[in-house]
Amino acid sequence: MKPISDIIKQKPWVGWGLFLATVVLVFLIGLFASSIIERRSESVYTLQMVKPINDWEPRNEIWGENFPREYETYKNTLDTNYASKHGGAVMIDYLEKYPELVVMWAGYAFSKEYNQGRGHAHAINDIRKILRTGGTQESPQPATCWTCKSTDVPRLMNEMGATNFYKKKWKDLGAEVVNPIGCQDCHDPKTMNLRITRPALIEAFQRRGKDINSFTRQEMRSLVCAQCHVEYYFKGKEEKYLTFPWDKGFSADEMEVYYDNMDFTDWTHKLSRAPMLKAQHPDYELFMTGIHAKRGVACADCHMPYKSEGGVKFTDHHIQSPLANVANTCQVCHRQETQTLMQDVYERQDRIEELRRIAEKTIAAAHIEAKTAWDTGATEDEMKPILKLIRHAQWRWDWVAAANGMGFHAPVEALRVLGTSIQKGEEARRMLAVVFIKHNVKYPIQMPDISTKKKAQEYIGLEIDKLRKDKDELLKTVVVKWDEEAKERQGTLIDYKAK
Amino acid sequence: MKPISDIIKQKPWVGWGLFLATVVLVFLIGLFASSIIERRSESVYTLQMVKPINDWEPRNEIWGENFPREYETYKNTLDTNYASKHGGAVMIDYLEKYPELVVMWAGYAFSKEYNQGRGHAHAINDIRKILRTGGTQESPQPATCWTCKSTDVPRLMNEMGATNFYKKKWKDLGAEVVNPIGCQDCHDPKTMNLRITRPALIEAFQRRGKDINSFTRQEMRSLVCAQCHVEYYFKGKEEKYLTFPWDKGFSADEMEVYYDNMDFTDWTHKLSRAPMLKAQHPDYELFMTGIHAKRGVACADCHMPYKSEGGVKFTDHHIQSPLANVANTCQVCHRQETQTLMQDVYERQDRIEELRRIAEKTIAAAHIEAKTAWDTGATEDEMKPILKLIRHAQWRWDWVAAANGMGFHAPVEALRVLGTSIQKGEEARRMLAVVFIKHNVKYPIQMPDISTKKKAQEYIGLEIDKLRKDKDELLKTVVVKWDEEAKERQGTLIDYKAK
Repeated sequence: MKPISDIIKQKPWVGWGLFLATVVLVFLIGLFASSIIERRSESVYTLQMVKPINDWEPRNEIWGENFPREYETYKNTLDTNYASKHGGAVMIDYLEKYPELVVMWAGYAFSKEYNQGRGHAHAINDIRKILRTGGTQESPQPATCWTCKSTDVPRLMNEMGATNFYKKKWKDLGAEVVNPIGCQDCHDPKTMNLRITRPALIEAFQRRGKDINSFTRQEMRSLVCAQCHVEYYFKGKEEKYLTFPWDKGFSADEMEVYYDNMDFTDWTHKLSRAPMLKAQHPDYELFMTGIHAKRGVACADCHMPYKSEGGVKFTDHHIQSPLANVANTCQVCHRQETQTLMQDVYERQDRIEELRRIAEKTIAAAHIEAKTAWDTGATEDEMKPILKLIRHAQWRWDWVAAANGMGFHAPVEALRVLGTSIQKGEEARRMLAVVFIKHNVKYPIQMPDISTKKKAQEYIGLEIDKLRKDKDELLKTVVVKWDEEAKERQGTLIDYKAK
Repeated sequence: MKPISDIIKQKPWVGWGLFLATVVLVFLIGLFASSIIERRSESVYTLQMVKPINDWEPRNEIWGENFPREYETYKNTLDTNYASKHGGAVMIDYLEKYPELVVMWAGYAFSKEYNQGRGHAHAINDIRKILRTGGTQESPQPATCWTCKSTDVPRLMNEMGATNFYKKKWKDLGAEVVNPIGCQDCHDPKTMNLRITRPALIEAFQRRGKDINSFTRQEMRSLVCAQCHVEYYFKGKEEKYLTFPWDKGFSADEMEVYYDNMDFTDWTHKLSRAPMLKAQHPDYELFMTGIHAKRGVACADCHMPYKSEGGVKFTDHHIQSPLANVANTCQVCHRQETQTLMQDVYERQDRIEELRRIAEKTIAAAHIEAKTAWDTGATEDEMKPILKLIRHAQWRWDWVAAANGMGFHAPVEALRVLGTSIQKGEEARRMLAVVFIKHNVKYPIQMPDISTKKKAQEYIGLEIDKLRKDKDELLKTVVVKWDEEAKERQGTLIDYKAK
């Protein structure tokens, strides 16, 4: 074979061919290298904002212009498609499913309407529509109820101060609070760092001698949620100052002591006249007693797992049940099949639901019996210890029942607390039986039919049709004006609705 | 440099030196290879028995001659050194610690004496000493009680048949049953394969349509334990045929239905006259409802972990709490620190104990109140539903309480079952209150002082001193003769005692 130099000497076009081929190849390698560099720079998450976000900017869509992936996944919270085994339909009507609840909340707004929670982007629409916030005639709630519903809240608190915010009425701020729970609630608009915007959490930790700035990033991935997913109460008759009852500890027992020591009651029960407590989804507290918290798992690990798109890894802002996304949540740590893991969750939830239902039936019966006891001449002295038992039984039940996840955040603690609830509820019924017989009342007493929500609401004297009509009136007139006013103020207004 | 052949030609001793060095090196390599082969053959567990073991050989020491490692670790079951946080001392006197139990078992042998279980090698000594098996005067138990205590049982059942074995009295077989739980109970003497020797387990699975031979080796590593660590009862007034109540399922609820359907009672309660059930350590059943069983873990994985000595890997026959050996049990799967893992177990157990104690106080009170109700003129009709509630409440409590491990084998199920126990116990007390008032009995009734074991035993009318004296007499006279007779029969007799 001839050397290549000889060939080129004989046929010069071969040399040019080789030269050109080399040029093309080098060019292609250059293109490829550029693509690699681009991808890498994309995956190294540097904060490059299209336009800076103002302090206290409430509009999620403005943040979304800078962070399209996070915003797009956030908007998926409109689709609460994950239908749990324990219900099926989206937004379960709990009062329909468990009519005892109507009786347990007699005299309190929860007896009017109580549904399964939906995704964050529904927050404004849902709080406007729920009967608990009232209509044009009667609107009993303070502005404190807005606290956890909107990115407008930090803005307003910054403008008027938290104390003045809480003092207002819910209806007073309807035109101001229009953007649903979103970016601003958890993020610093300059650095995107996680940030606590609600004073109640900061104050609760302060009272426990803990500075909110001392928490790690991983702790913050739970604490931003704990701004709202906790037990709280409205302190002061007029002030309605949002406060977490954590001074003695996070457990149901410790909070019970806290409330008892200050003689706090959320309302006086309409039937039993018991000084009641209403638990408000103590998700964080229950979670902290469970094994996932002990192992350093944060809320976001299961409810906002990491996601990849192209070369970019980001946090999925479609906050939802981890069971809707087992591959990216449970299976990051647990090497079992999806069906196995889901079954494990359901088995725990089924057991918790069994004890929860026992407690509900016991406590509802106790309220009804207490009413009959009063009606048939029971004395204050006779009733006082009974009402205290009912208060504690229902508080403990509610501490588990009101929390999301049907107790899965800490099944062992949930069952323990429910066990003590059952004991107290049954003890109250035993003491009631004694009262009846002493007053020559036939025992067991005649129990009302509370087998459906309708029947139970009629029994406790709720005029639902009237409330519903007044609510519709509010939505058609007042709320429309709120939106118009808001649109004028902030330029745009997105009406978040499920597709 | 000169070639080596030239050097050797000039200096022949260099050639000889090289030759000798090669010989020595090859010899050393040979030695090393032999050592490797030896080690490997040691670690490949071929069944090489020093002397063959006869069928139904009950003496553990004879098996031990062939399997010294297993036998040595087995003998460590004499040292029950692992003192749980929930007691401290070895062999807790449960009646002293929880005097309510005396009342709950009034009229049943368990009210006489009930201690924390000790290691397998103590089995013969402990069953002889416990007051439940009686003395020279009164010895109420059938031979069925021996079934789980000794390697002599398969031998005797083989000789006389299980039916005839169960029909005997406990005292009849004292000289025959002398070797504590050991090798023969779980192993085939020819192949050392795991083998079921107790007919009750085989029969229970047969009734469920399952052949015992169809189980995998891993399942057998639990099933040999399930020969004894289960719920069982003595079927037939005379036959006392050992039977597992598994026909409807393994859960407390399903076994309760099984017993109710056949109107079975272990005894009639001395105070309440309730038709009682006694649960017998349903460890296997409770375990099967928990996460470890679901993940394919066997009893032996945690209670008999693998161990290495030299090149030999074998199963540690020192059966004990996994917490005494976290490094080889929990930490095989769980990557947390020992203290963390122990704390996790204790936290579950503490919560279970809390509900268990509530149930105990409720049920003991119900028995006492039921007695007063009978004494003050309650009718059969009034008492019947109450006694059924007490029966079910105590059965469910016992299903958890009697199982080893303070519910850790399945904490969620344990708490669920305890929750239902509390409800039923409290409901019984409510109905009792009604009975009292109807019969003009002052309510609450005067409760006896049962704050210590002594006081509780006096209350239920037990003459413990007399029983203890009679037991001592049995040990000094009869039992000594049993041992002499046994020694004569089998040549040797080891008296297993803790060092």
